[in-house]
Amino acid sequence: MSQITALDTFDLRFPTSRMLDGSDAMNPDPDYSAAYVIVRTDDDGPDGHGFVFTIGRGNDVQVAAIDALRPLLVGADADALLADMGSAWRRLVHDSQLRWLGPEKGVMHMAIGAVLNALWDLAAKRAGVPLWRLLSGLSPEQIVDLVDFRYLTDALEPAEALQLLRAAEPGREERTADLVAHGYPAYTTTPGWLGYDDAKLARLTREAVEAGFTQIKLKVGGDLADDVRRLGIAREIAGPDIRIAIDANQRWDVDEAVRWVKELAPFDPWWVEEPTSPDDVLGHAAIAQRIAPVRVATGEHVANRVVFKQLLQAGATQIVQIDATRVAGVNENLAILLLAAKFGVPVCPHAGGVGLCEVVQHLAMVDYVAVSGSTENRVLEYVDHLHEHFADPVRIENGRYLAPERPGAGTEIIAPSLVAHRFPDGEVWS
Amino acid sequence: MSQITALDTFDLRFPTSRMLDGSDAMNPDPDYSAAYVIVRTDDDGPDGHGFVFTIGRGNDVQVAAIDALRPLLVGADADALLADMGSAWRRLVHDSQLRWLGPEKGVMHMAIGAVLNALWDLAAKRAGVPLWRLLSGLSPEQIVDLVDFRYLTDALEPAEALQLLRAAEPGREERTADLVAHGYPAYTTTPGWLGYDDAKLARLTREAVEAGFTQIKLKVGGDLADDVRRLGIAREIAGPDIRIAIDANQRWDVDEAVRWVKELAPFDPWWVEEPTSPDDVLGHAAIAQRIAPVRVATGEHVANRVVFKQLLQAGATQIVQIDATRVAGVNENLAILLLAAKFGVPVCPHAGGVGLCEVVQHLAMVDYVAVSGSTENRVLEYVDHLHEHFADPVRIENGRYLAPERPGAGTEIIAPSLVAHRFPDGEVWS
Repeated sequence: MSQITALDTFDLRFPTSRMLDGSDAMNPDPDYSAAYVIVRTDDDGPDGHGFVFTIGRGNDVQVAAIDALRPLLVGADADALLADMGSAWRRLVHDSQLRWLGPEKGVMHMAIGAVLNALWDLAAKRAGVPLWRLLSGLSPEQIVDLVDFRYLTDALEPAEALQLLRAAEPGREERTADLVAHGYPAYTTTPGWLGYDDAKLARLTREAVEAGFTQIKLKVGGDLADDVRRLGIAREIAGPDIRIAIDANQRWDVDEAVRWVKELAPFDPWWVEEPTSPDDVLGHAAIAQRIAPVRVATGEHVANRVVFKQLLQAGATQIVQIDATRVAGVNENLAILLLAAKFGVPVCPHAGGVGLCEVVQHLAMVDYVAVSGSTENRVLEYVDHLHEHFADPVRIENGRYLAPERPGAGTEIIAPSLVAHRFPDGEVWS
Repeated sequence: MSQITALDTFDLRFPTSRMLDGSDAMNPDPDYSAAYVIVRTDDDGPDGHGFVFTIGRGNDVQVAAIDALRPLLVGADADALLADMGSAWRRLVHDSQLRWLGPEKGVMHMAIGAVLNALWDLAAKRAGVPLWRLLSGLSPEQIVDLVDFRYLTDALEPAEALQLLRAAEPGREERTADLVAHGYPAYTTTPGWLGYDDAKLARLTREAVEAGFTQIKLKVGGDLADDVRRLGIAREIAGPDIRIAIDANQRWDVDEAVRWVKELAPFDPWWVEEPTSPDDVLGHAAIAQRIAPVRVATGEHVANRVVFKQLLQAGATQIVQIDATRVAGVNENLAILLLAAKFGVPVCPHAGGVGLCEVVQHLAMVDYVAVSGSTENRVLEYVDHLHEHFADPVRIENGRYLAPERPGAGTEIIAPSLVAHRFPDGEVWS
């Protein structure tokens, strides 16, 4: 038996606001950050790493929330915990007192996600495989056992989830081979940050197309005339066959979203992302109906599976954008993948930030191998920031993510970066 | 000019789990707690007090979130801030980096609520009036200026809110006099905690009726046979004319809620509270439709005005239960009062916990005087816990809240309790 001995936490921040990387209509000056946790055990094996992505101020609050989970795990039997990750999820999410701080949303819920992802990192490292392979190798019954169906059964019963997973079982081997040979399709947000000038937008759009990407994304929602001009530049350079998504980062009310998107419709946007509040299921549904055939995409700020369930029930989103660190970890994202499969809606994960690409690629790949069984209309976001800090950085070739090969969940930041980026005393900040 | 010099925070906890006060189907062992803040200025005048109510573990995380707001306020001009509380709300809620931690939900959003309520406490003390009088004395234009209509305009435009408030203007004086003379109608949850045995339930039900309450509430959702027996006892003692609400504290999925409530329908429950996840607008709507004429009530865990908007748009709740410390303070609760008035749905605030009665009574009274203009089908929850710790404890007479008379927002805890209940070093805990 091995025991969990420590949850060590780190407040890591990267001074991205100095370059306006990551600037958009709602987030003009982010300092990409990670509330980072290492789960240690008393054996000689690996540690588990996990984190919550934030954009600067408040990363210390996020760390405090992870710290609050320490008493629930230190002293626990690591083997038993990893052998029943469905119970581990419930133990953390349903703590009778901590639950009040959400419930199942915000800082406390994300903290649980970081810890669960660290446990998954540990499990994958112990198994000697990358997380996507570990998960893709589970039986349908094992996957269903990882999911808490509370509040979901009006849309998806466990039996139905099992059926979906069984239907996808036959092709697993073939799709795994396909992933290893060709990777997973990506799109890039690199050209389109709101803080970039037209020349930089044009150059980066050209480079993205040349690099093999078939979809790019532009931030919008600051100023309509600017958006029209910028989208025109991108469309002219990209040509008619490259998909261009637009992303408003929650900038609009319902009517405003509809008016704005209609003005941009001549440039054939593939989807409009986060047109309004991520909590507004009915608002997204109204927008989706009024701007069709332009698709609505959302998810990076959707608090939990219950809101995703409703977005799907209401036809409010045509693209499900899971995020690796917004919900309570791998388990809850599996629930969301199952919901999306049930409703036949493609999952195109949110990534970027710091480490989100590294982590969420595993979930996109599980979706392909074991859940939806498809990459049709599925693309995984790619942003070329901060990968150098990770032990297993993503590898992009010809507009596709290559399948990770190293054991783990992609969550591990290299030791020198843990030191240099520690806030406020690391060398980057002093 | 006076300047804000400090935000002093306190982790206060009350060992309520020792008595099973406050026990329900989801919260079996709460230790009622307050993440408490005092806003201090450099003048000789009063300080402002505010808090978030939690139920124990994680109260330290909630305190850390309040601490994270310190740099946004210390050094600010207190006079300017209090003169434009609409801007103060936006300054805190729309901070470009902290926003990521919600957005507008959970620990960070509640922290903002505590600080805003402390500013309102300061404003009311400076004005020498209780908060309900301060707010009831504002012009319709001033009230509208306090509300952020972002994400609300598809349901309520500022002009419409103004119209509602103007329509309620003529009767303000008369309703104020009525409040002072007769107080505001209350109901009590004291008899119905899940941890109490049948004899205690019977005794407390009898006492509640004798004390003049016309509505009581019972916790349900643990075990159906128990609920049938307990509701039977309460109905027999209370007779047919006392309203009995039931509260499931989010225990059920949609179908389960419908089945369970139908079994309890013979006892004529007035409303069923929190039948399922507070995030599940569509789930509440389905339940409401299927259990009518039993009403659905929810709100104490509803994260923000955007979710309340949808609950009203979807006909998902027939009773709006605002909470004093779940959303971002007085301003956001005014938005919710306006939305409820627009949809003609009565507001029956959630209270209890520690200090929730003291604070939320001010909002119920503003609703009566200046917003809805009515107490029809409106009752304010009352639980007889922990009032002795407050500088201006609620006063209940004949089943009604007497209107507060002392200056402030009802948020102030007396100094000895700040010392004795400090966690983990106060005498109560050591």
